[in-house]
Amino acid sequence: MIIDIDKWKERKYEFWKRLWEDLEIGYLDEDLLPLLVEFNLRPDTYTLSSCSGRIVIVDSIKPWAREKTNVIFKKHQPIKIDELMDIIKKPFVHRLWLIVSGPIIHVSVNSLKSAINTLRLAREAGFKHSGILSINKVKGIILELLTGVKMSHLLKDPNGYEVNANNIPLLIKVANEILLDGKKMFNQLYQILKMNRPNKLDNYILEDLVKKELLWIIK
Amino acid sequence: MIIDIDKWKERKYEFWKRLWEDLEIGYLDEDLLPLLVEFNLRPDTYTLSSCSGRIVIVDSIKPWAREKTNVIFKKHQPIKIDELMDIIKKPFVHRLWLIVSGPIIHVSVNSLKSAINTLRLAREAGFKHSGILSINKVKGIILELLTGVKMSHLLKDPNGYEVNANNIPLLIKVANEILLDGKKMFNQLYQILKMNRPNKLDNYILEDLVKKELLWIIK
Repeated sequence: MIIDIDKWKERKYEFWKRLWEDLEIGYLDEDLLPLLVEFNLRPDTYTLSSCSGRIVIVDSIKPWAREKTNVIFKKHQPIKIDELMDIIKKPFVHRLWLIVSGPIIHVSVNSLKSAINTLRLAREAGFKHSGILSINKVKGIILELLTGVKMSHLLKDPNGYEVNANNIPLLIKVANEILLDGKKMFNQLYQILKMNRPNKLDNYILEDLVKKELLWIIK
Repeated sequence: MIIDIDKWKERKYEFWKRLWEDLEIGYLDEDLLPLLVEFNLRPDTYTLSSCSGRIVIVDSIKPWAREKTNVIFKKHQPIKIDELMDIIKKPFVHRLWLIVSGPIIHVSVNSLKSAINTLRLAREAGFKHSGILSINKVKGIILELLTGVKMSHLLKDPNGYEVNANNIPLLIKVANEILLDGKKMFNQLYQILKMNRPNKLDNYILEDLVKKELLWIIK
């Protein structure tokens, strides 16, 4: 399948505009910005939804469930003992899970060659579960860049299971360690992309960075 | 990129032969067999390493680590309270993790059209993290079919963290529930493949099943 480059570019610049709107309203995970800029500088790539890694506490039967799920806590930085202690004390419905996820990056590229190249760089950075999710003439080739960094720990079950309060400090230590493992891989991907920056950059993105006085981001 | 169909087929039948050798020496997870046969019946597909879902207990710093990792326990069926109790009592080095994984299937297909079609069927069965891992002229287009079914629970840390013995029965209940969620999706994929069996099957595979007196598997 051949990508319609004009329509693909139109979508790229729409997503680029949306990125800055998300940043303005505080919706964007700020740790992401340098990596997102680096990807969008590539003429053959743009970024979709992404996450630099996070710690989440959910009230749901299964850790991966979307329905009947209540996200009680979400943070892209290490968490504190008190933050978990406070949540543990409150009522819940299904089960409480502590979930630490590594980074997840979605990008669209406009050729199979770019897809293979990007997957190679991602694997080099430790994103071992990366692959092509779908191929579409207008939307491009959608890649998911994913590490194996993950923890999903049962904290509480209504039938009597409950994490021991004495265990919480060490549990938090391990969860934060895992979060930082993910952030490290995120930075590795950023460095590898920077080192492999193509000679020809996307002029529209470059000019927009000049206009925003944000050229320092790519220095 | 265009796949070299002759060389691809040669590899397909090599892998098919190896599958039966693995079964004979007890290396193959037997739950897998009907699904693997169903995939290989398709003229455009063959299977690589796969797993129908499992419960593993590892001694390692991080649940995803491969180095400095000791797999203490591995089972493709639900586990019993005593099995975990016995392990918990024994000495360990790094950390003890209880890991439940859903099914993971690797297949090779010989065209982009087949890849897109297979990914569509897999997503329909709940394998939401499925994608193309790589593309190679001889090896074909390698797909990873993956669900979100996962639990990775810290059991023990040398710095004092230890799962409470009273909590173990419920922890086992949840782990087994998650394993069975994965097996359910595995069966969904099998049923969807069977319902979408192509008109033209792979004759080599069919004849080999006749020779092995195993045609009943595909009834």
